[in-house]
Amino acid sequence: MLHHLDGGARCELTSPTAMPLAAGFLWNRRMMIQATCRGYATAQFMQPEPAKYAHAPGLEARTFMQPEQAYYAHHPGRFVYVKDEETGQLFSAPHEPVRARADAFRFTVGRHELAWTVEHLGLRVEMTLGLPVDDVVELWEARVTDLSGRARRVSVVPYFPIGYMSWMNQSAEWRADLGGIVASSVTPYQKVADYFKNQQLKDKTYFLCEQAPDAWEASQAAFEGEGGLHAPSALQPDQLACGDARYETPAACVQYRLTLAPGQSEVRRFLFGPALDDAEIARMRDTYLGADAFARTRAAYAAYIDGGRGGLRITTPDADFDRFVNHWLPRQVFYHGDVNRLSTDPQTRNYLQDNLGMAFIAPQVTRGALLLALSQQHANGSMPDGILLVEGAELKYINQVPHTDHCVWLPVCLQAYLNETADFALLGELVNGLTVADRLDAAMAWLHQDRDARGLSYIAQGDWCDPMNMVGYKGRGVSGWLTVAAAYAMTLWAGISADAGRPDAAGRWRAAAQQLNDAANAHLWDGDWFARGITDDGVVFGVSTDTAGRLYLNPQSWALLSGAANARQRDRMIAAIDAQLETPHGVAMFNPPYPAMREDVGRVTQKHPGSAENGAVYNHAASFYVHALYAIGDADRAYRALRRMIPGPDEADLLQRGQLPVFIPNYYRGAHEQYPRTAGRSSQLFNTGTAAWAYRSIIEDLCGLRGCAKGLVVRPQLPSSWQELSAEREFRGARFHLQVRRTGQARVLLDGQALPDGLVRAIEPGREYRLAVELA
Amino acid sequence: MLHHLDGGARCELTSPTAMPLAAGFLWNRRMMIQATCRGYATAQFMQPEPAKYAHAPGLEARTFMQPEQAYYAHHPGRFVYVKDEETGQLFSAPHEPVRARADAFRFTVGRHELAWTVEHLGLRVEMTLGLPVDDVVELWEARVTDLSGRARRVSVVPYFPIGYMSWMNQSAEWRADLGGIVASSVTPYQKVADYFKNQQLKDKTYFLCEQAPDAWEASQAAFEGEGGLHAPSALQPDQLACGDARYETPAACVQYRLTLAPGQSEVRRFLFGPALDDAEIARMRDTYLGADAFARTRAAYAAYIDGGRGGLRITTPDADFDRFVNHWLPRQVFYHGDVNRLSTDPQTRNYLQDNLGMAFIAPQVTRGALLLALSQQHANGSMPDGILLVEGAELKYINQVPHTDHCVWLPVCLQAYLNETADFALLGELVNGLTVADRLDAAMAWLHQDRDARGLSYIAQGDWCDPMNMVGYKGRGVSGWLTVAAAYAMTLWAGISADAGRPDAAGRWRAAAQQLNDAANAHLWDGDWFARGITDDGVVFGVSTDTAGRLYLNPQSWALLSGAANARQRDRMIAAIDAQLETPHGVAMFNPPYPAMREDVGRVTQKHPGSAENGAVYNHAASFYVHALYAIGDADRAYRALRRMIPGPDEADLLQRGQLPVFIPNYYRGAHEQYPRTAGRSSQLFNTGTAAWAYRSIIEDLCGLRGCAKGLVVRPQLPSSWQELSAEREFRGARFHLQVRRTGQARVLLDGQALPDGLVRAIEPGREYRLAVELA
Repeated sequence: MLHHLDGGARCELTSPTAMPLAAGFLWNRRMMIQATCRGYATAQFMQPEPAKYAHAPGLEARTFMQPEQAYYAHHPGRFVYVKDEETGQLFSAPHEPVRARADAFRFTVGRHELAWTVEHLGLRVEMTLGLPVDDVVELWEARVTDLSGRARRVSVVPYFPIGYMSWMNQSAEWRADLGGIVASSVTPYQKVADYFKNQQLKDKTYFLCEQAPDAWEASQAAFEGEGGLHAPSALQPDQLACGDARYETPAACVQYRLTLAPGQSEVRRFLFGPALDDAEIARMRDTYLGADAFARTRAAYAAYIDGGRGGLRITTPDADFDRFVNHWLPRQVFYHGDVNRLSTDPQTRNYLQDNLGMAFIAPQVTRGALLLALSQQHANGSMPDGILLVEGAELKYINQVPHTDHCVWLPVCLQAYLNETADFALLGELVNGLTVADRLDAAMAWLHQDRDARGLSYIAQGDWCDPMNMVGYKGRGVSGWLTVAAAYAMTLWAGISADAGRPDAAGRWRAAAQQLNDAANAHLWDGDWFARGITDDGVVFGVSTDTAGRLYLNPQSWALLSGAANARQRDRMIAAIDAQLETPHGVAMFNPPYPAMREDVGRVTQKHPGSAENGAVYNHAASFYVHALYAIGDADRAYRALRRMIPGPDEADLLQRGQLPVFIPNYYRGAHEQYPRTAGRSSQLFNTGTAAWAYRSIIEDLCGLRGCAKGLVVRPQLPSSWQELSAEREFRGARFHLQVRRTGQARVLLDGQALPDGLVRAIEPGREYRLAVELA
Repeated sequence: MLHHLDGGARCELTSPTAMPLAAGFLWNRRMMIQATCRGYATAQFMQPEPAKYAHAPGLEARTFMQPEQAYYAHHPGRFVYVKDEETGQLFSAPHEPVRARADAFRFTVGRHELAWTVEHLGLRVEMTLGLPVDDVVELWEARVTDLSGRARRVSVVPYFPIGYMSWMNQSAEWRADLGGIVASSVTPYQKVADYFKNQQLKDKTYFLCEQAPDAWEASQAAFEGEGGLHAPSALQPDQLACGDARYETPAACVQYRLTLAPGQSEVRRFLFGPALDDAEIARMRDTYLGADAFARTRAAYAAYIDGGRGGLRITTPDADFDRFVNHWLPRQVFYHGDVNRLSTDPQTRNYLQDNLGMAFIAPQVTRGALLLALSQQHANGSMPDGILLVEGAELKYINQVPHTDHCVWLPVCLQAYLNETADFALLGELVNGLTVADRLDAAMAWLHQDRDARGLSYIAQGDWCDPMNMVGYKGRGVSGWLTVAAAYAMTLWAGISADAGRPDAAGRWRAAAQQLNDAANAHLWDGDWFARGITDDGVVFGVSTDTAGRLYLNPQSWALLSGAANARQRDRMIAAIDAQLETPHGVAMFNPPYPAMREDVGRVTQKHPGSAENGAVYNHAASFYVHALYAIGDADRAYRALRRMIPGPDEADLLQRGQLPVFIPNYYRGAHEQYPRTAGRSSQLFNTGTAAWAYRSIIEDLCGLRGCAKGLVVRPQLPSSWQELSAEREFRGARFHLQVRRTGQARVLLDGQALPDGLVRAIEPGREYRLAVELA
């Protein structure tokens, strides 16, 4: 069912029904598109806020990308109907809307393009989708081949629904001058000021044809008729009616009546995207539509994506893991770092973590992000809830709700950046009159003072992403996670300060961290794990007496990182996690799921069991657990948790998750005891800080190639079942070839010479280093 | 295709394909539902803001009711599948989603219930929908009858899609304890304060069954499977799988496996609606589910609707017109007046006009509405953009944009109320320390001062409903319509003041009105008609030199009413309207349609030609033209314009409009020269001030039975082709029997005695009056 091509650079699914939501995604600097094996698609672009050019058939809410997007017959998608003009038989590629049982089916997710191949009625249809680097336009190619050994007369009818564009105001028609169907609308507004803002919105959607079709239809209803999308009435006669849409739901349908000799192929190319006006449409046509332009764009886009391929290649006993790490994980990291989830106001914690990942791909980007984030630091040292990326951007949605954790992510991101670059000069850079180091001090000081009399960190309306919005909204509740997370942040900043020759600061922050760790131990240790927090009314929660939400993962992971937990506590915490949070699809964020709203905790408890979030495997949370497990040297548990972030390895697991192994989703559903039918299902959402952390753990911990102020520390941590691992890593301009074997004798050899402390010093750019690591 | 039953109280359509959007609507004090002949439905209820309990399959925008609602396979609806268990053949009632070609089809829109009858495969399915008066719940009955003359085994499967309820949080399951499928969700929110607001939201949707089904399915996707809604996979096996939905799109599907003897009928009853919790669901079941409860509810609802049946019955040569006026028009008027379009902040002009209509049905309601509106009058005499009806309501949408016309509607509404009641005591009622009369003076004074140096009324960001938002947003532009409308309002108030013994005020407002009329003539008369306005930059528009938006209807209608137009002007204006605005489907609001945004006029020009609004027949505007035509005695033109508000009379017209003659829609599409294919199409939207005005014109002008301070003025205005009319009217507690005939001699007889001035004085409640009117 699932095949890997090109050494894992392409991933192929051979059934459209086994994993109906299986999807690939492409993005460029201004858009993203997620397309499923069956042909449904969700595309957004920036102008500057996220917008769509193909819509649902009803008035949609404007929102962020949804997990587990619900598909239905009229959902936006990109389809090609094929009709045998001799028999009247019909099918559609890739699968929707006709849902014919094809003789052969392939959905191929490549790093640079998506492709579908469908064989039915003695015909092969191949569809491919590519993007350019900087423009918002889809490049589609449809190839139809006669496999039947006899001449055929067929109609090939691309059907790209455009959907409900605008209230009381939408139309579409064939435009001979532009060579395509153009749908027009006006974004509705009520206040005069919005008119001026809206003038630059791309309110047109175009579908351009390289070759003029024989007929077309621009009205969804006229195309569908009484037949329904599975057998559109407009395809009954020989030709589409060449109709338009006048305040009717628009669709782009064009018909090519082809005569194919045995073995003959015909190719048609199309562009689909949004535009401000006719001039822009004409420009897109001139730039992108044609065989040469497609080839040129394809090459440029591949170069763009490969520019973010990361500096690591591994070979391990786990080939599925290797494929994912070598081809897909850095691509996902690059997506986050290069386009910031296509948002104008990324949450500060997301922004810093996405850019943490970028340290392994393009560290200059991370540097710029740290400076930009710090330029928006408040005077009191706290960080805003989101970082504004463009002129005129505003804090929206959840960024209007106060969260108290944003400062934590500054040293976390900075540490990863310095590991990669040792660019300590950054600490002296001035940002609005203060150095970066001053600003980090101020951020830590804000965290240090934002605590209650017990020394625990206030939670306000939330820490991190969790919708734990009612623990502390009255101003008294505290966060167990944040208390140890702040301790960890201070510890990191102390270490950086020490490396940067700021011993006083280092000592101060080490002591501060100890205060937080002590407070956590005094007030939050529950006997076998740390509590999640204490509510406004003084109720400790996330503790053994709770029947729901008893054990939360994050406070444990970060207590391991912060040093709050001693060895005895560690063992108890891990045993509790093993017993209560381990699931077949990863480590749950908390358990047991809440059966109903717990009003003193908040929204996180309000999700129904069996809904998406309640007790789910949040990969982002799991990724910190991985990080913590490696920090304490538990390589087996760490790898097991890491591995389960990736769908597979076997077919049953793939089917249950319903996702191709081409990205780590933000969650897999939990509640596997209550709802085994849906447990493990992927959110299909590729926006998650997990990617950066997983990549980091693989580079720095699994492969054990971690940068530091002095050079490269070599300390691989293989799962005990692995006998060997080899890796190549680019680091500070040099290339390291790593061979790890389990020989029974622990030692590190650099170019054949023993390296007793495992630290490669004075790295020379351009040089090739050979590291041989033997494990006990 | 269209049949009338019960003397017009029910309207029947015998094809689901000829007029696919044809719909009926029911409402009660807390909800409304519009259901189409094919089974799609749009329902909203108040909690207190409008909300839904059956949703689209994607995240919907929260919005007011849309014109020309777009339907598609997965749109909310109420369907019943029927499967012949012997042959596996399948169809669905009413028509969607299977779309089988039935042997017989009937969609019956009654005043109290909607019904569908479908015959196919030797079976008859009858579905009926009723509502109670005060609760939010749909009462459904499905009856299946074996017409085949042999025993049958069938499955009857109601399928009520529930749709996408909530982000990350929705589920549905069979609840044996409640006897139905219950879908649960939590309205998403991000700010803590919203949690407390949301606690009272009815986040559950229930589908309760009087008799336990044999099987069920609560997941949309599981029901549909690969088969698609036209052939759901779940209906292939003998039984539904009894599945649940866990963060999957919920649907209510239940299966009854029936064995029918020849001629046998089986009835199943269901409730469908929203609830806060299980207790409410149980209460709804106890109150409404069962044959007796259905019958009791049906009778109570009929009594409720009949309580708004109005006091007029007419018989004219135009039977279609009579049916509409006797049964449907007062129902539409009652809907507006009783529930204020299911809004918590109706626009002030809508609120006053909807209550104007109520003067003919329940004048006490009009009185209350006038007092409530005046209680929200600003200190400077101006009126707010919307009237807040409930605690906590806020001005939303367009009500946040300043419009300058709201004061106009006070004397307009008051005049209709006084015509009906002669309740001049109202003028002395105190509202927040001022009398009603004082407040009307203040409102007129505000209109009088809100004018520019030329004496023309400012438009700000709009007058009336037109999105003419950029004429005067800089504070200088003026409205031609508002100038004459304000003059008319002052004229009306002068007349009321005279009748109320306030001669000074009467004189003052008459003089003021004259000033406005003079200003209009000085600055806006364009040679053949009045201009629509003058922009911020001094450009007069709606004039003969404009190539688009040349002639606007409203300034002409109101200049006729205000007295701004002399006889010569009248003739020219009407000739221009005849030539430029008359269309087969009514009188357009303006013509020609704008080809693109005219930036100094505004949004009204931005609608594409062929879109809904641009150059449309706005019935509300047409209704003022009717009013004005009657005011100048042009009975032929008035009746022609009035008649065309109602779909029909012939089949071609019905098909083009696509609407049943059970309400007047807010618009029919215009641009009939540019887009004849879509011109005339109904908006299918029954929210419109038209209903009140049309009813008033029929009562006061066509029948000529207008109340006044002294009694009833009798002056029918029949179209010249009519030889007679008879009417019954209840008025001030008495009953008037009117017979009008064209005898060649004009006179009025009251109970056989000549009534030279046509004024019935000293009306005695309870008495029956016989009026015979002879026309020249």
